[in-house]
Amino acid sequence: MAMITLTTDFGTGDEYAGLMKAAILSINRSATIVDISHGIDAQDVVQAAFLIETAFPYFPEGTIHVVVVDPGVGTDRAIAGVEVSGHFFIAPDNGILGMVLESADPEIVVRLDNRAFFLDRISATFHGRDIMAPAAAHLSLGVRLSRMGQGVAAGDLVTIEGLRASLTPDGKIEGRVIAIDRFGNLVTNISSERLRSAGLTQPGNAGAIRVLLGSRHEIDFLSRYADAVPNCPLALIGSRGYLEIAVNSGSAHAFFAAGKTTPVRVDVAG
Amino acid sequence: MAMITLTTDFGTGDEYAGLMKAAILSINRSATIVDISHGIDAQDVVQAAFLIETAFPYFPEGTIHVVVVDPGVGTDRAIAGVEVSGHFFIAPDNGILGMVLESADPEIVVRLDNRAFFLDRISATFHGRDIMAPAAAHLSLGVRLSRMGQGVAAGDLVTIEGLRASLTPDGKIEGRVIAIDRFGNLVTNISSERLRSAGLTQPGNAGAIRVLLGSRHEIDFLSRYADAVPNCPLALIGSRGYLEIAVNSGSAHAFFAAGKTTPVRVDVAG
Amino acid sequence: MAMITLTTDFGTGDEYAGLMKAAILSINRSATIVDISHGIDAQDVVQAAFLIETAFPYFPEGTIHVVVVDPGVGTDRAIAGVEVSGHFFIAPDNGILGMVLESADPEIVVRLDNRAFFLDRISATFHGRDIMAPAAAHLSLGVRLSRMGQGVAAGDLVTIEGLRASLTPDGKIEGRVIAIDRFGNLVTNISSERLRSAGLTQPGNAGAIRVLLGSRHEIDFLSRYADAVPNCPLALIGSRGYLEIAVNSGSAHAFFAAGKTTPVRVDVAG
Repeated sequence: MAMITLTTDFGTGDEYAGLMKAAILSINRSATIVDISHGIDAQDVVQAAFLIETAFPYFPEGTIHVVVVDPGVGTDRAIAGVEVSGHFFIAPDNGILGMVLESADPEIVVRLDNRAFFLDRISATFHGRDIMAPAAAHLSLGVRLSRMGQGVAAGDLVTIEGLRASLTPDGKIEGRVIAIDRFGNLVTNISSERLRSAGLTQPGNAGAIRVLLGSRHEIDFLSRYADAVPNCPLALIGSRGYLEIAVNSGSAHAFFAAGKTTPVRVDVAG
Repeated sequence: MAMITLTTDFGTGDEYAGLMKAAILSINRSATIVDISHGIDAQDVVQAAFLIETAFPYFPEGTIHVVVVDPGVGTDRAIAGVEVSGHFFIAPDNGILGMVLESADPEIVVRLDNRAFFLDRISATFHGRDIMAPAAAHLSLGVRLSRMGQGVAAGDLVTIEGLRASLTPDGKIEGRVIAIDRFGNLVTNISSERLRSAGLTQPGNAGAIRVLLGSRHEIDFLSRYADAVPNCPLALIGSRGYLEIAVNSGSAHAFFAAGKTTPVRVDVAG
Repeated sequence: MAMITLTTDFGTGDEYAGLMKAAILSINRSATIVDISHGIDAQDVVQAAFLIETAFPYFPEGTIHVVVVDPGVGTDRAIAGVEVSGHFFIAPDNGILGMVLESADPEIVVRLDNRAFFLDRISATFHGRDIMAPAAAHLSLGVRLSRMGQGVAAGDLVTIEGLRASLTPDGKIEGRVIAIDRFGNLVTNISSERLRSAGLTQPGNAGAIRVLLGSRHEIDFLSRYADAVPNCPLALIGSRGYLEIAVNSGSAHAFFAAGKTTPVRVDVAG
């Protein structure tokens, strides 16, 4: 009973996600396929890197995650197959698995190049359907990653600098908005672990902590939406375990002139 | 072969629906999950109450419906588990099940509070994933609702006033638009039963019935889209069994300056 | 292990796709349902005709495809059931299967009229739920198409003229944009077979081929996105096997003042 998840920037309006499922089910008729999201902003590899890191642990061990945000499709960029933390990942080698690979040492990393596990015809524009989905389906049938391509060191994969928020020498955290959800919540790259390690945790000392959005907005750091006055902003740890800026019963995206990449800082007041 | 449906205001762009499925499938690997809709307008409990009432009877008896529009997430609002009309429902206790509960006396109503059936870690912002989806999964495995929480009377659940259209003493029906669909149809809270009980049925006496949208627009009450001139408006009983205002081959939402909450009245002309 | 696909213009915001699944699963609890797309532009039968033609071959033989773009719902337009190329199709008889039926001679064509295989109550506005989904479910259980309705000749079905690009006497191809995808790619009705049969193939003689969008824009015909300068346009064979106009790392829809129905011509320069 194999499970395969899909995370892409394909949207749901076109047939792209449906054809990845066609490719999988043509190979493994009994695979269970779960859409994590097809709403990654077009070609936003960083957003996808954060999403898959925080989503995959909710799935059972052994799940195969196909993650396709692939601005380099058609070039000679590689495609990676990874086993780490009891899960499998198939994705373009463009840094998208960077945060997943921080969580533990991988069991195995390969560059997928064995065409026996791809569709016969490979387009120049849709390797999600032609390579990654079929490879995931074969993996779900028990084919080993080591048969699908050349093993490489995890360190040989492409990496993206500056994914996570940084800690300054004087103990401030400097991050940014990396996604805006349907409710207008501004999701940052500042994890609760980062806050904890910097001693900037809540709720005990929440009153002393300042969250700064952009250069102007100082926002209260609270525990839950309802702790803010209705229609007023707050910062809180969201469901991903990352700092989010929200508006109680409203949209932070509409409230602030802030979008993706807007800087967010956290420090101690006074 | 358990079936679980999801109805939320989470949209499909973010990972929220996918993580509810992860939580379910981690507990019951063989559950069949069906998305009814994730497109409820953000925090519109009323819209969801109508949708689930009209959608659930199309599913087989024994289906478990998880309905999450939850502006009170993180507060002490309760979560309800209900068995009624041969179906199960899990939802925040905020009135969202009000119309379902009008259909029949429930077999059992509980407030879910047994943490044994939730995820270990419960966030302040996403009880759909952390509480309601896992509870539904355990229910699908045969756990009884009575084990999941404290039994309460149906009358103890939160209710919302004025969900349904009202009947005036002089025999007029006063309702409103409660949803706008993808085609621009304006869906009202005036059911065909309400029209029938007021003697305002079609098509026999359709010519004598007036549908008034807002304060200005009088609209013909017809049987099907094609009965109106192309690009002209009509009122008809839509697929939910509720009065809808449509434009043949067009969008009523674009045609009229009308949106959600616009009043709709039905009476007899002359 | 039956597979049923859905292709509609219902969007994913409303409950329409979910209720088609309810109707199917109420009849065949073990059917696997795959959404190909619910994002066909509202009532755009032509767009759907192209999508299903290019999508269905990725599914296993025996798959049942339900295709619902149905501006004539509620009128006396027929509903077609077709077996062709090892697949089954159920759709309104409005030309939507026209391109699928060009691929091969059908085994059988029927007009669905046996109410034993429909839901008991049939609305005037949603035959996808009330007729087509239930018929597909019965088909997936082994009921033969011949039992579901009156056999007719393929030539008796409604056809739409001018779906495919045309070849002029002097060897030019005249087509148009028929869809715009999430990335802003302009998908045309010019197939790679059409280009090949006209001797307008790539990449060997790509330099000599001109692609003209509208009356003003001449666009390079290349093999892959990365062959164009970033943020510059190109034409290429997309994942459907049709000519597409794209912008490397950008959106052709935003780049050009071009939308659906914009003419596209291909000829040899000089």
